[in-house]
Amino acid sequence: MQNRFMEKAIALAIENVRRGRGGPFAAVVVRDGAIIAEGTNRVTFSNDPTAHAEIVAIREACQALGNFQLTGCEIYTTCEPCPMCMGAIYWARPAKVFYASTAKDASAAGFDDSFIYKQLKLPATARRIPMIQLMREEALEAFRAWEQKSDRIEY
Amino acid sequence: MQNRFMEKAIALAIENVRRGRGGPFAAVVVRDGAIIAEGTNRVTFSNDPTAHAEIVAIREACQALGNFQLTGCEIYTTCEPCPMCMGAIYWARPAKVFYASTAKDASAAGFDDSFIYKQLKLPATARRIPMIQLMREEALEAFRAWEQKSDRIEY
Repeated sequence: MQNRFMEKAIALAIENVRRGRGGPFAAVVVRDGAIIAEGTNRVTFSNDPTAHAEIVAIREACQALGNFQLTGCEIYTTCEPCPMCMGAIYWARPAKVFYASTAKDASAAGFDDSFIYKQLKLPATARRIPMIQLMREEALEAFRAWEQKSDRIEY
Repeated sequence: MQNRFMEKAIALAIENVRRGRGGPFAAVVVRDGAIIAEGTNRVTFSNDPTAHAEIVAIREACQALGNFQLTGCEIYTTCEPCPMCMGAIYWARPAKVFYASTAKDASAAGFDDSFIYKQLKLPATARRIPMIQLMREEALEAFRAWEQKSDRIEY
């Protein structure tokens, strides 16, 4: 069963490359033994650097479920998720993730995954993209507005 | 100038909470001294766990530029980006990022940022969301298809 879903994801990834739609990555979201969403990498095709397979699949699955959580779902992705997609997975909170190739395999094929993982472990001041803090006090007002909002929807 | 852009982002974040559109976060993308895109958190409003302010702003900026890169742009975000958004920033490759409140401030207000940063530092097998590897050999075929594609668009 698990292999069948991963086979589907791998087929989608290869088709995505052959059709010139983006990078060699795909993912499917499964619930109760059925695929509820598919995603392929569309970065260059859609001019969207966030359109990784997992992000596309998570967004589509959430639309299908009418929910911002993937409770009880499984994600099958052809490659170990990059930090962006790992973050998205934590926010979507599926039950499990299955992956096939590794971040190292992705890096060997020219993708930045391992580099970004290393960057995220550095303090903000040591990162390649400069991160500069300003106006913290003023920004805390947004959190106060949130805490004071009695009908807020937590996520 | 920097403060003006951050003030705008903070105002958008507060307005987002007051209007019940999502969490207390906003971001703007600036190029050549002008705002080219704005984003606010839309997770609950759009049923999209990836709709963080930075992701929304990056996607909108890329559409405005017709490019999948934010070369030469600056991102002003009301809060230190979560791992998902940091990953997106690395893929979008802006020149600089300005942030106001910290991941710790976000966690104090009930958001998972610090938890996810800690999870990403753990090996896949030790993470809260189980990560299971299968079919690596079969998946490498997608990378081979990519390497063999002479007209591939790298990103």
